[in-house]
Amino acid sequence: MKEQDERFMRMAIEASRAGMERGDGGPFGCVIVKDGNVVGSGNNRVTSDNDPTAHAEVVAIRNACANLKNFQLKDCTVYTSCEPCPMCLGALYWARPARIVYAATREDAAAAGFDDQLIYDELPLPPEKRRFPMERQLREEAKEVFHAWTAMEAKVKY
Amino acid sequence: MKEQDERFMRMAIEASRAGMERGDGGPFGCVIVKDGNVVGSGNNRVTSDNDPTAHAEVVAIRNACANLKNFQLKDCTVYTSCEPCPMCLGALYWARPARIVYAATREDAAAAGFDDQLIYDELPLPPEKRRFPMERQLREEAKEVFHAWTAMEAKVKY
Repeated sequence: MKEQDERFMRMAIEASRAGMERGDGGPFGCVIVKDGNVVGSGNNRVTSDNDPTAHAEVVAIRNACANLKNFQLKDCTVYTSCEPCPMCLGALYWARPARIVYAATREDAAAAGFDDQLIYDELPLPPEKRRFPMERQLREEAKEVFHAWTAMEAKVKY
Repeated sequence: MKEQDERFMRMAIEASRAGMERGDGGPFGCVIVKDGNVVGSGNNRVTSDNDPTAHAEVVAIRNACANLKNFQLKDCTVYTSCEPCPMCLGALYWARPARIVYAATREDAAAAGFDDQLIYDELPLPPEKRRFPMERQLREEAKEVFHAWTAMEAKVKY
């Protein structure tokens, strides 16, 4: 297992370097593996795609799910060159792979200028206590759509 | 301001209902506004696009950033029909809009079968304490790429 893990992690690290050298974005890469085969990969493309969600993990999740024709990563292992940020962790919880292997830590990323700490600090706070201005409006009108969803019979749950 | 807010929030709620009725995914919609104009919108497309990251906010952020040709949402307001999940909140922190307005709460979403609580509980924990299996490997090899990034002169920071 360790030998296979290292092989795929080196591919993720190589993707991080290649993306950086091409000018795609920051130095982050990710490879997703199922049954010993690569089913998706990605590197950071935030600045070249004008997409703040295009972190390596999100790009790789989208790629793997497209290849697997499924909105979940059942029985997959995600190899990422750096500890995922809160956005990517959230994406990974929704995608539900079997395990995650990462290389550099969030502290290593912060030392290179990529600091997630504000997001980690803010997420557990209730919306009104966050530094980010958040307001609630028209709650009841939105709830009506949830009631319609609950009552709907033909739907795909996720 | 309140009148304008309600107008755009009703558009977000309408997007949540229309997407649900088309079978795109769950009942969630989002509209992004700059200087009084809609610059992007989206609804949940997880199950129809086979993309676990295609929450309404992520779809709208990607759409608005593509339209604005920028990887940030400077001076934008994000109207979302439901309190953003941790993945979407992370995406919003990276996109940096001026403010977020939401309608239904995370409790309303949970009552309709969309429960974010596990993710909120897990994110603040150190990786080794999460329910989700996470392991670290080859840290030093990944750090070498960060050092190369730090030393690189021609790069777009974000």
